[in-house]
Amino acid sequence: MDMLTLHEYPPSGNCYKIRLVAAHLGLTLERRGYDILRGETRTPEFLNGVNANGRIPVLQVGDRYLPESGAACFYLADGSPLIPEDRFDRADMLRWMNFEQYNHEPNIATLRFWLAYVGEDGLTEVQKSLIPSKQAGGEAALDLMEAHLRDRRYLVADRFTLADVALYAYTHVADEGGFDLARWPSVVAWIDRISALPGHISIDA
Amino acid sequence: MDMLTLHEYPPSGNCYKIRLVAAHLGLTLERRGYDILRGETRTPEFLNGVNANGRIPVLQVGDRYLPESGAACFYLADGSPLIPEDRFDRADMLRWMNFEQYNHEPNIATLRFWLAYVGEDGLTEVQKSLIPSKQAGGEAALDLMEAHLRDRRYLVADRFTLADVALYAYTHVADEGGFDLARWPSVVAWIDRISALPGHISIDA
Repeated sequence: MDMLTLHEYPPSGNCYKIRLVAAHLGLTLERRGYDILRGETRTPEFLNGVNANGRIPVLQVGDRYLPESGAACFYLADGSPLIPEDRFDRADMLRWMNFEQYNHEPNIATLRFWLAYVGEDGLTEVQKSLIPSKQAGGEAALDLMEAHLRDRRYLVADRFTLADVALYAYTHVADEGGFDLARWPSVVAWIDRISALPGHISIDA
Repeated sequence: MDMLTLHEYPPSGNCYKIRLVAAHLGLTLERRGYDILRGETRTPEFLNGVNANGRIPVLQVGDRYLPESGAACFYLADGSPLIPEDRFDRADMLRWMNFEQYNHEPNIATLRFWLAYVGEDGLTEVQKSLIPSKQAGGEAALDLMEAHLRDRRYLVADRFTLADVALYAYTHVADEGGFDLARWPSVVAWIDRISALPGHISIDA
Protein backbone atom coordinates (compact mmCIF):
# COMPACT_ATOMS: atom_id res chain seq x y z
CA MET A 1 0.00 0.00 0.00
CA ASP A 2 1.13 3.57 -0.62
CA MET A 3 2.34 5.60 2.34
CA LEU A 4 -0.62 6.81 4.40
CA THR A 5 -0.64 10.27 5.99
CA LEU A 6 -3.54 11.57 8.06
CA HIS A 7 -4.03 15.33 7.91
CA GLU A 8 -5.91 15.97 11.10
CA TYR A 9 -6.96 17.95 14.15
CA PRO A 10 -6.32 15.33 16.81
CA PRO A 11 -9.33 16.00 19.11
CA SER A 12 -11.72 15.68 16.14
CA GLY A 13 -13.83 12.54 16.29
CA ASN A 14 -13.87 12.44 12.48
CA CYS A 15 -10.07 12.14 12.52
CA TYR A 16 -10.18 9.60 15.34
CA LYS A 17 -12.39 7.31 13.22
CA ILE A 18 -9.57 6.93 10.72
CA ARG A 19 -6.95 6.28 13.41
CA LEU A 20 -9.26 3.70 15.02
CA VAL A 21 -9.78 1.83 11.74
CA ALA A 22 -6.04 1.86 11.06
CA ALA A 23 -5.38 0.50 14.57
CA HIS A 24 -7.82 -2.37 14.07
CA LEU A 25 -6.24 -3.20 10.72
CA GLY A 26 -2.65 -2.89 11.96
CA LEU A 27 -1.89 -0.05 9.52
CA THR A 28 0.60 2.72 10.26
CA LEU A 29 -0.46 6.32 9.63
CA GLU A 30 1.86 9.27 9.52
CA ARG A 31 0.13 12.18 11.25
CA ARG A 32 0.17 15.86 10.34
CA GLY A 33 -1.73 18.12 12.76
CA TYR A 34 -3.54 21.40 12.08
CA ASP A 35 -5.10 23.71 14.67
CA ILE A 36 -8.56 24.43 13.25
CA LEU A 37 -9.15 27.05 15.97
CA ARG A 38 -6.29 29.03 14.40
CA GLY A 39 -7.55 28.59 10.85
CA GLU A 40 -4.72 26.30 9.78
CA THR A 41 -6.99 24.41 7.34
CA ARG A 42 -8.06 27.62 5.58
CA THR A 43 -4.59 28.70 4.41
CA PRO A 44 -3.87 28.85 0.65
CA GLU A 45 -1.38 25.99 1.10
CA PHE A 46 -4.02 23.73 2.65
CA LEU A 47 -6.79 24.72 0.25
CA ASN A 48 -4.63 24.27 -2.84
CA GLY A 49 -2.63 21.27 -1.71
CA VAL A 50 -4.72 19.16 0.66
CA ASN A 51 -8.45 19.92 0.53
CA ALA A 52 -10.21 22.73 -1.33
CA ASN A 53 -13.07 22.26 1.15
CA GLY A 54 -10.83 23.51 4.00
CA ARG A 55 -11.68 20.63 6.29
CA ILE A 56 -9.97 17.79 8.07
CA PRO A 57 -9.60 14.83 8.09
CA VAL A 58 -7.91 14.14 4.80
CA LEU A 59 -6.22 10.80 4.20
CA GLN A 60 -3.24 11.15 1.92
CA VAL A 61 -2.51 7.96 -0.04
CA GLY A 62 0.84 8.40 -1.72
CA ASP A 63 0.36 11.67 -3.57
CA ARG A 64 -3.46 11.53 -3.69
CA TYR A 65 -5.79 13.13 -1.15
CA LEU A 66 -9.03 11.66 0.17
CA PRO A 67 -11.22 13.97 2.28
CA GLU A 68 -14.29 12.86 4.29
CA SER A 69 -13.91 10.49 7.22
CA GLY A 70 -16.34 7.87 5.87
CA ALA A 71 -14.54 7.68 2.54
CA ALA A 72 -11.14 7.39 4.22
CA CYS A 73 -12.38 4.64 6.55
CA PHE A 74 -13.88 2.77 3.59
CA TYR A 75 -10.61 3.04 1.66
CA LEU A 76 -8.58 1.60 4.54
CA ALA A 77 -11.06 -1.16 5.38
CA ASP A 78 -12.02 -2.18 1.82
CA GLY A 79 -11.75 -5.97 1.63
CA SER A 80 -11.38 -6.39 5.41
CA PRO A 81 -13.86 -7.83 7.94
CA LEU A 82 -14.74 -4.26 9.00
CA ILE A 83 -16.97 -4.10 5.88
CA PRO A 84 -19.61 -6.84 5.58
CA GLU A 85 -19.43 -8.94 2.43
CA ASP A 86 -23.23 -9.34 2.29
CA ARG A 87 -24.72 -6.80 -0.13
CA PHE A 88 -27.56 -5.65 2.11
CA ASP A 89 -25.37 -5.50 5.21
CA ARG A 90 -22.74 -3.50 3.36
CA ALA A 91 -25.35 -0.94 2.31
CA ASP A 92 -26.83 -0.99 5.82
CA MET A 93 -23.39 -0.11 7.18
CA LEU A 94 -23.31 2.91 4.86
CA ARG A 95 -26.82 3.79 6.06
CA TRP A 96 -25.54 4.17 9.65
CA MET A 97 -22.45 6.06 8.48
CA ASN A 98 -24.70 8.47 6.58
CA PHE A 99 -27.03 8.78 9.57
CA GLU A 100 -24.01 9.70 11.65
CA GLN A 101 -22.90 12.47 9.31
CA TYR A 102 -26.39 13.87 8.79
CA ASN A 103 -28.26 13.43 12.08
CA HIS A 104 -25.64 12.77 14.75
CA GLU A 105 -22.43 14.64 13.99
CA PRO A 106 -23.97 18.05 13.12
CA ASN A 107 -25.71 17.99 16.50
CA ILE A 108 -23.50 16.10 18.95
CA ALA A 109 -20.07 16.87 17.49
CA THR A 110 -20.97 20.49 16.84
CA LEU A 111 -22.22 21.03 20.41
CA ARG A 112 -19.06 19.36 21.74
CA PHE A 113 -16.92 21.66 19.62
CA TRP A 114 -18.89 24.76 20.56
CA LEU A 115 -19.11 24.05 24.30
CA ALA A 116 -15.81 22.24 25.03
CA TYR A 117 -13.43 23.81 22.47
CA VAL A 118 -14.71 27.24 21.34
CA GLY A 119 -16.53 28.02 24.58
CA GLU A 120 -20.04 29.49 24.85
CA ASP A 121 -18.69 33.06 25.06
CA GLY A 122 -17.04 32.65 21.68
CA LEU A 123 -20.23 31.67 19.84
CA THR A 124 -22.15 33.93 17.47
CA GLU A 125 -25.77 34.83 18.19
CA VAL A 126 -26.94 32.51 15.39
CA GLN A 127 -24.90 29.67 16.89
CA LYS A 128 -26.34 30.32 20.36
CA SER A 129 -29.85 30.28 18.90
CA LEU A 130 -29.19 26.82 17.44
CA ILE A 131 -28.17 25.17 20.72
CA PRO A 132 -31.70 24.00 21.68
CA SER A 133 -32.40 22.41 18.28
CA LYS A 134 -29.00 20.73 18.28
CA GLN A 135 -29.63 19.36 21.78
CA ALA A 136 -32.98 17.97 20.62
CA GLY A 137 -31.44 16.57 17.43
CA GLY A 138 -28.62 14.91 19.36
CA GLU A 139 -31.07 13.37 21.84
CA ALA A 140 -33.18 12.04 18.97
CA ALA A 141 -30.08 10.46 17.39
CA LEU A 142 -29.16 8.80 20.69
CA ASP A 143 -32.76 7.63 21.17
CA LEU A 144 -32.65 5.96 17.77
CA MET A 145 -29.33 4.25 18.58
CA GLU A 146 -30.68 3.15 21.97
CA ALA A 147 -33.73 1.49 20.39
CA HIS A 148 -31.60 -0.23 17.76
CA LEU A 149 -28.94 -1.44 20.22
CA ARG A 150 -31.39 -2.69 22.84
CA ASP A 151 -31.24 -6.20 21.36
CA ARG A 152 -28.07 -6.00 19.27
CA ARG A 153 -24.36 -6.15 20.08
CA TYR A 154 -23.32 -4.02 17.11
CA LEU A 155 -25.17 -1.79 14.64
CA VAL A 156 -24.96 -4.06 11.60
CA ALA A 157 -24.45 -7.76 10.83
CA ASP A 158 -23.91 -8.71 14.50
CA ARG A 159 -20.28 -7.71 14.35
CA PHE A 160 -17.97 -4.70 14.63
CA THR A 161 -17.97 -2.71 11.36
CA LEU A 162 -17.28 0.80 10.12
CA ALA A 163 -20.81 1.70 11.24
CA ASP A 164 -19.72 1.20 14.85
CA VAL A 165 -16.52 3.15 14.29
CA ALA A 166 -18.44 6.05 12.77
CA LEU A 167 -20.95 6.32 15.60
CA TYR A 168 -18.57 5.47 18.44
CA ALA A 169 -16.28 8.42 17.67
CA TYR A 170 -18.56 11.23 18.86
CA THR A 171 -21.00 9.19 20.98
CA HIS A 172 -18.39 8.16 23.55
CA VAL A 173 -17.46 11.82 24.13
CA ALA A 174 -21.03 13.15 23.93
CA ASP A 175 -20.80 14.26 27.58
CA GLU A 176 -18.42 17.00 26.39
CA GLY A 177 -21.37 18.32 24.34
CA GLY A 178 -23.66 18.27 27.36
CA PHE A 179 -25.33 14.88 26.82
CA ASP A 180 -25.69 12.66 29.91
CA LEU A 181 -25.19 9.19 28.43
CA ALA A 182 -26.71 7.49 31.50
CA ARG A 183 -30.06 8.17 29.78
CA TRP A 184 -29.10 5.68 27.04
CA PRO A 185 -27.95 2.45 28.79
CA SER A 186 -27.83 0.24 25.68
CA VAL A 187 -25.60 2.84 24.05
CA VAL A 188 -23.33 2.82 27.10
CA ALA A 189 -23.11 -0.99 26.98
CA TRP A 190 -22.21 -0.79 23.27
CA ILE A 191 -19.53 1.83 24.02
CA ASP A 192 -18.05 -0.47 26.67
CA ARG A 193 -18.14 -3.39 24.21
CA ILE A 194 -16.23 -1.43 21.55
CA SER A 195 -13.64 0.02 23.91
CA ALA A 196 -12.88 -3.52 25.16
CA LEU A 197 -12.14 -4.90 21.68
CA PRO A 198 -8.59 -6.09 20.96
CA GLY A 199 -6.81 -3.44 18.91
CA HIS A 200 -8.85 -0.56 20.33
CA ILE A 201 -7.15 2.80 20.85
CA SER A 202 -8.52 5.83 22.68
CA ILE A 203 -9.24 9.21 21.08
CA ASP A 204 -6.18 10.75 22.74
CA ALA A 205 -3.80 7.95 21.72
CA MET B 1 -33.37 -9.62 -6.57
CA ASP B 2 -36.08 -9.10 -3.94
CA MET B 3 -38.97 -6.81 -4.78
CA LEU B 4 -37.88 -3.18 -4.48
CA THR B 5 -40.21 -0.51 -3.07
CA LEU B 6 -39.21 3.11 -2.74
CA HIS B 7 -40.86 4.95 0.15
CA GLU B 8 -40.60 8.53 -0.99
CA TYR B 9 -41.71 12.13 -1.31
CA PRO B 10 -41.49 12.48 -5.09
CA PRO B 11 -40.11 16.08 -5.30
CA SER B 12 -37.24 15.17 -2.94
CA GLY B 13 -33.87 15.07 -4.68
CA ASN B 14 -32.77 12.37 -2.25
CA CYS B 15 -35.61 10.15 -3.50
CA TYR B 16 -34.88 11.06 -7.12
CA LYS B 17 -31.30 9.79 -6.73
CA ILE B 18 -32.62 6.29 -6.13
CA ARG B 19 -35.04 6.44 -9.06
CA LEU B 20 -32.23 7.72 -11.31
CA VAL B 21 -29.91 4.87 -10.32
CA ALA B 22 -32.69 2.33 -10.87
CA ALA B 23 -33.40 3.81 -14.31
CA HIS B 24 -29.75 3.56 -15.34
CA LEU B 25 -29.63 -0.05 -14.16
CA GLY B 26 -32.96 -1.02 -15.71
CA LEU B 27 -34.46 -1.93 -12.33
CA THR B 28 -38.16 -1.57 -11.52
CA LEU B 29 -39.14 0.19 -8.29
CA GLU B 30 -42.58 0.12 -6.76
CA ARG B 31 -43.30 3.60 -5.39
CA ARG B 32 -45.12 4.57 -2.22
CA GLY B 33 -45.52 8.32 -1.69
CA TYR B 34 -45.75 10.31 1.56
CA ASP B 35 -46.49 14.03 1.92
CA ILE B 36 -43.80 15.27 4.28
CA LEU B 37 -45.51 18.68 4.51
CA ARG B 38 -48.45 16.87 6.15
CA GLY B 39 -46.24 14.85 8.52
CA GLU B 40 -46.91 11.52 6.83
CA THR B 41 -43.42 10.22 7.71
CA ARG B 42 -43.89 11.00 11.42
CA THR B 43 -46.88 8.72 12.00
CA PRO B 44 -46.51 5.75 14.37
CA GLU B 45 -47.00 3.41 11.39
CA PHE B 46 -44.11 4.96 9.50
CA LEU B 47 -41.81 5.26 12.53
CA ASN B 48 -42.43 1.69 13.66
CA GLY B 49 -42.64 0.04 10.25
CA VAL B 50 -40.48 1.94 7.77
CA ASN B 51 -37.92 4.24 9.42
CA ALA B 52 -37.59 5.16 13.09
CA ASN B 53 -35.77 8.29 11.91
CA GLY B 54 -39.00 9.61 10.32
CA ARG B 55 -37.35 10.41 7.02
CA ILE B 56 -37.61 9.46 3.38
CA PRO B 57 -36.25 7.96 1.18
CA VAL B 58 -36.31 4.39 2.40
CA LEU B 59 -35.62 1.56 -0.02
CA GLN B 60 -37.56 -1.56 0.92
CA VAL B 61 -35.82 -4.74 -0.23
CA GLY B 62 -38.24 -7.61 0.27
CA ASP B 63 -39.17 -7.18 3.94
CA ARG B 64 -36.06 -5.20 4.93
CA TYR B 65 -35.80 -1.42 5.02
CA LEU B 66 -32.80 0.66 3.99
CA PRO B 67 -32.94 4.39 4.84
CA GLU B 68 -30.47 7.02 3.55
CA SER B 69 -30.22 7.81 -0.15
CA GLY B 70 -26.51 7.05 -0.44
CA ALA B 71 -26.90 3.62 1.12
CA ALA B 72 -29.88 2.79 -1.10
CA CYS B 73 -28.01 3.89 -4.25
CA PHE B 74 -24.99 1.82 -3.22
CA TYR B 75 -27.19 -1.23 -2.65
CA LEU B 76 -28.77 -0.96 -6.10
CA ALA B 77 -25.51 -0.23 -7.91
CA ASP B 78 -23.24 -2.65 -6.04
CA GLY B 79 -21.30 -4.62 -8.65
CA SER B 80 -22.37 -2.35 -11.53
CA PRO B 81 -20.30 0.17 -13.53
CA LEU B 82 -21.88 2.98 -11.47
CA ILE B 83 -19.37 2.10 -8.72
CA PRO B 84 -15.68 2.14 -9.75
CA GLU B 85 -13.79 -1.10 -9.21
CA ASP B 86 -10.55 0.73 -8.36
CA ARG B 87 -10.13 0.98 -4.59
CA PHE B 88 -9.16 4.64 -4.46
CA ASP B 89 -11.79 5.69 -7.00
CA ARG B 90 -14.49 3.79 -5.08
CA ALA B 91 -13.56 5.65 -1.88
CA ASP B 92 -13.31 8.93 -3.81
CA MET B 93 -16.88 8.34 -5.02
CA LEU B 94 -17.99 8.00 -1.38
CA ARG B 95 -16.05 11.20 -0.64
CA TRP B 96 -18.23 13.17 -3.05
CA MET B 97 -21.39 11.47 -1.78
CA ASN B 98 -20.44 12.46 1.77
CA PHE B 99 -19.58 15.99 0.67
CA GLU B 100 -23.05 16.19 -0.87
CA GLN B 101 -24.82 15.15 2.30
CA TYR B 102 -22.71 17.34 4.58
CA ASN B 103 -21.87 20.51 2.62
CA HIS B 104 -24.30 20.64 -0.31
CA GLU B 105 -27.67 19.15 0.64
CA PRO B 106 -28.09 20.91 4.03
CA ASN B 107 -27.61 24.22 2.23
CA ILE B 108 -28.99 23.89 -1.31
CA ALA B 109 -31.70 21.29 -0.73
CA THR B 110 -32.82 22.93 2.49
CA LEU B 111 -33.10 26.38 0.86
CA ARG B 112 -35.02 24.84 -2.04
CA PHE B 113 -37.41 23.15 0.39
CA TRP B 114 -37.83 26.28 2.50
CA LEU B 115 -38.28 28.71 -0.40
CA ALA B 116 -40.07 26.59 -3.04
CA TYR B 117 -42.13 24.19 -0.90
CA VAL B 118 -42.70 25.61 2.61
CA GLY B 119 -42.56 29.26 1.51
CA GLU B 120 -40.71 32.04 3.32
CA ASP B 121 -43.81 33.02 5.33
CA GLY B 122 -43.97 29.53 6.82
CA LEU B 123 -40.43 29.57 8.20
CA THR B 124 -39.54 29.96 11.86
CA GLU B 125 -37.40 32.88 13.02
CA VAL B 126 -34.43 30.54 13.53
CA GLN B 127 -34.85 29.19 9.98
CA LYS B 128 -35.02 32.72 8.56
CA SER B 129 -31.83 33.65 10.44
CA LEU B 130 -30.04 30.70 8.78
CA ILE B 131 -30.82 31.72 5.19
CA PRO B 132 -27.65 33.84 4.67
CA SER B 133 -25.30 31.14 5.99
CA LYS B 134 -27.04 28.51 3.88
CA GLN B 135 -26.73 30.71 0.79
CA ALA B 136 -23.01 31.14 1.49
CA GLY B 137 -22.58 27.41 2.18
CA GLY B 138 -24.39 26.47 -1.02
CA GLU B 139 -22.30 28.90 -3.06
CA ALA B 140 -19.11 27.46 -1.54
CA ALA B 141 -20.24 23.93 -2.46
CA LEU B 142 -20.95 25.02 -6.05
CA ASP B 143 -17.59 26.84 -6.22
CA LEU B 144 -15.84 23.63 -5.19
CA MET B 145 -17.72 21.62 -7.82
CA GLU B 146 -16.96 24.26 -10.45
CA ALA B 147 -13.21 24.12 -9.76
CA HIS B 148 -13.23 20.32 -9.82
CA LEU B 149 -15.31 20.04 -13.00
CA ARG B 150 -13.39 22.69 -14.96
CA ASP B 151 -11.16 20.01 -16.48
CA ARG B 152 -13.20 16.86 -15.83
CA ARG B 153 -16.26 15.30 -17.48
CA TYR B 154 -17.45 13.58 -14.30
CA LEU B 155 -16.57 13.87 -10.62
CA VAL B 156 -14.66 10.59 -10.28
CA ALA B 157 -12.80 8.14 -12.51
CA ASP B 158 -13.68 9.99 -15.74
CA ARG B 159 -17.06 8.30 -15.93
CA PHE B 160 -20.62 8.56 -14.62
CA THR B 161 -20.84 7.13 -11.07
CA LEU B 162 -22.99 7.43 -7.97
CA ALA B 163 -21.01 10.58 -7.11
CA ASP B 164 -22.56 12.30 -10.12
CA VAL B 165 -26.02 10.99 -9.26
CA ALA B 166 -25.71 12.27 -5.68
CA LEU B 167 -24.64 15.77 -6.68
CA TYR B 168 -26.81 16.08 -9.78
CA ALA B 169 -30.04 15.57 -7.83
CA TYR B 170 -30.13 18.92 -6.01
CA THR B 171 -27.66 20.85 -8.18
CA HIS B 172 -29.83 20.76 -11.29
CA VAL B 173 -32.76 22.27 -9.36
CA ALA B 174 -30.65 24.70 -7.31
CA ASP B 175 -32.43 27.63 -8.99
CA GLU B 176 -35.48 26.68 -6.91
CA GLY B 177 -33.34 27.47 -3.86
CA GLY B 178 -32.33 30.84 -5.24
CA PHE B 179 -28.99 29.90 -6.83
CA ASP B 180 -28.31 31.28 -10.31
CA LEU B 181 -26.38 28.43 -11.93
CA ALA B 182 -25.08 30.68 -14.73
CA ARG B 183 -22.36 31.62 -12.22
CA TRP B 184 -20.99 28.07 -12.44
CA PRO B 185 -20.56 27.24 -16.17
CA SER B 186 -18.60 24.01 -15.72
CA VAL B 187 -21.35 22.77 -13.41
CA VAL B 188 -23.96 23.66 -16.04
CA ALA B 189 -21.99 21.75 -18.71
CA TRP B 190 -21.80 18.73 -16.37
CA ILE B 191 -25.56 18.93 -15.74
CA ASP B 192 -26.17 18.95 -19.50
CA ARG B 193 -23.83 15.98 -19.93
CA ILE B 194 -25.67 13.93 -17.32
CA SER B 195 -29.15 14.79 -18.54
CA ALA B 196 -28.14 13.68 -22.06
CA LEU B 197 -27.01 10.20 -20.95
CA PRO B 198 -28.94 7.19 -22.28
CA GLY B 199 -31.25 5.93 -19.52
CA HIS B 200 -31.62 9.35 -17.89
CA ILE B 201 -34.98 10.26 -16.33
CA SER B 202 -36.08 13.64 -15.03
CA ILE B 203 -36.95 14.41 -11.40
CA ASP B 204 -40.66 14.57 -12.22
CA ALA B 205 -40.72 11.29 -14.16
